[in-house]
Amino acid sequence: MSKALELHKELAGKIEVTNKLSVTSMEQLSLLYSPGVADPCLEIEKDESKVYEYTWVGNTIAVVSNGTAVLGLGDIGAKAGLPVMEGKSMLFKGFAGVNAVPIMLDTKDSDEIIRTVEIIAPTFGGINLEDIKAPECVYIERKLKEKLSIPVFHDDQHGTAVVVMAGLFNAFKILGKELKDAKVVVAGTGAAGSSIIRMLYEYGVRNIVATNSKGVVKPSLKDTYNFVVEELCEYLVEPTGISSLKEAIVDADVFIGVSIANQLVAEDIKTMAKDAVVFALANPNPEIPYDEAIKGGAAIVGTGRSDYPNQVNNVLAFPGIFRGALDAKATQITEGMKIAAAAALAEYVSESELSKTSILPNILAPNVSDKVAEAVKAKAIEEGVVREK
Amino acid sequence: MSKALELHKELAGKIEVTNKLSVTSMEQLSLLYSPGVADPCLEIEKDESKVYEYTWVGNTIAVVSNGTAVLGLGDIGAKAGLPVMEGKSMLFKGFAGVNAVPIMLDTKDSDEIIRTVEIIAPTFGGINLEDIKAPECVYIERKLKEKLSIPVFHDDQHGTAVVVMAGLFNAFKILGKELKDAKVVVAGTGAAGSSIIRMLYEYGVRNIVATNSKGVVKPSLKDTYNFVVEELCEYLVEPTGISSLKEAIVDADVFIGVSIANQLVAEDIKTMAKDAVVFALANPNPEIPYDEAIKGGAAIVGTGRSDYPNQVNNVLAFPGIFRGALDAKATQITEGMKIAAAAALAEYVSESELSKTSILPNILAPNVSDKVAEAVKAKAIEEGVVREK
Repeated sequence: MSKALELHKELAGKIEVTNKLSVTSMEQLSLLYSPGVADPCLEIEKDESKVYEYTWVGNTIAVVSNGTAVLGLGDIGAKAGLPVMEGKSMLFKGFAGVNAVPIMLDTKDSDEIIRTVEIIAPTFGGINLEDIKAPECVYIERKLKEKLSIPVFHDDQHGTAVVVMAGLFNAFKILGKELKDAKVVVAGTGAAGSSIIRMLYEYGVRNIVATNSKGVVKPSLKDTYNFVVEELCEYLVEPTGISSLKEAIVDADVFIGVSIANQLVAEDIKTMAKDAVVFALANPNPEIPYDEAIKGGAAIVGTGRSDYPNQVNNVLAFPGIFRGALDAKATQITEGMKIAAAAALAEYVSESELSKTSILPNILAPNVSDKVAEAVKAKAIEEGVVREK
Repeated sequence: MSKALELHKELAGKIEVTNKLSVTSMEQLSLLYSPGVADPCLEIEKDESKVYEYTWVGNTIAVVSNGTAVLGLGDIGAKAGLPVMEGKSMLFKGFAGVNAVPIMLDTKDSDEIIRTVEIIAPTFGGINLEDIKAPECVYIERKLKEKLSIPVFHDDQHGTAVVVMAGLFNAFKILGKELKDAKVVVAGTGAAGSSIIRMLYEYGVRNIVATNSKGVVKPSLKDTYNFVVEELCEYLVEPTGISSLKEAIVDADVFIGVSIANQLVAEDIKTMAKDAVVFALANPNPEIPYDEAIKGGAAIVGTGRSDYPNQVNNVLAFPGIFRGALDAKATQITEGMKIAAAAALAEYVSESELSKTSILPNILAPNVSDKVAEAVKAKAIEEGVVREK
């Protein structure tokens, strides 16, 4: 039995529900439960916004998954996905003090997922969608954002994108280049890839090429793609005369891989522009190993791994993003708030620490989530996407 | 602002989600989250029953409500019901160590409630339904019991019934009478009333009369009632020549009120049989005040109130019932398990403590839930309604 398995068995649950006060006296009981509890109930019945004052809602989110795209394991089902969601809940609490309740859904029907989340939403102050397969996850998040007036955030899409943007901000700062002028190739047009492409475009990057398992994405063929890729075509350039990833990265300033292992070798990196940035984020094995990318001449390389420099890990982003959104009493998480989170992450790395092998905070660095939360909160208030103005 | 309101505001949530271990080292993180967490995921994918070994499921239930019948407040809505469900969760943890997650549902459609609970069920080892209005609650519980292979228990129905049965066991022991031979009148045919009538019948009582807001229930008119009352007719005698509660209790050995305040006076109690037992459980004001029932000559009186003797409070039952069911790895909560819980509660009161003003344990008496849990667990194993035999 592996050490991880042993620890999971010993714990039988990594999180628990605990009481803030003990129920040891009749007086306490009569205040916290019947008959005293009727008072907050009636206050909330009169004014629903009071639910934030008298209950856990203001500091509690649901981590919702149906287990169809868990880590690199794929569709393992609702029950088998629970250890990951419990782990996610641990990270929310440990890094940002947010109560996060795993909710595993035994359905693959997108509309049923949407309706279920809508029905259980009164219990929560935010919804973190997790490990739901693409392209359904994009549709589900979009619909829930329309229907609910609490923050809804699919971490596989936007958490990764925020950390990628933070890494790019610092990489381009070090290299003295302008991100907006860069040619960026993104391998992968699923959850993470689609959000990265949107954020890049939102930020001002106009030379973006995407590839997926079928090769280079061509806007002229957009009618033949699924709705997510079809929508992305708006943000992509039309590459001519090429069809593969290897061809696409020639002269590229940036390669971002959110796809599958071992797609590139050092020779491919050599065809990229000078001072190339390579984020090979497939887990656990990247699109090209760290050392191989360096050997190919990349100036800055990041992976998803903790055993190499520049770990691109969304735990840097999601706890602080929700902390900030909850603290701001935000009704949604906007593109602006995500960019603010990325900027805060980038700024966390001081001038003296910043180097080609140190473009992102270490995931255990102190108060990273606090800094992200402050930036996200300030942006939400600035944009006015809050319950009370 | 009331003291209860102040306390709720200060706490802003009576419960929270906490981590069993802190996430302070990269090694810990790699075991509890990626990549180590893949191990328990894959084990559960291979064998779903392993979810009880590697996650919180074996000690975690959902407290599910749509807020349509909250305390005595009625239909106050999903958000306004949350303080009660948080309170319930506190009691589950405080009295029996069970993790209980409030889940408020924003729907009144019974089939939608059933489907929603079915979809979120993989997250939980049991479902406690709460404060859902009758008769829908009976249909919802029944369907969920059919669909799910985890314990489903509507506390408003069965929690109260279990404590009533425990109280009756001890009352009849003191009075030296046989419960099976008693004439019992139950006022109220909603959630609690219907379960009490079923348990009385299951135990062997054959002279049961029920009344509700329309008067005495008559089996000959069963086609005119809602489905819950129609089904109850099987357990009821046909009273002739009477139509009111006051008429029904003439010569009755037991009156059980789970209806509304102030329906009876001392003169009515005088018409009951000798050594009458009166449980007037409407909250916060009983069907007849404690002192008034005593004045009417009742031998033993119980109410829902903590400021009079013999408090009939379902907190005596539900924490231990779920503790026992979870410990037994039970797949359901049967009538037998409920009767076992009632018997354990009755036995908790020692010979020396047992008196007309002490037929039930005090709700803060030590280890009440443990005793209930032991009995429920033993019964589940005896009946074989468990996952692993």
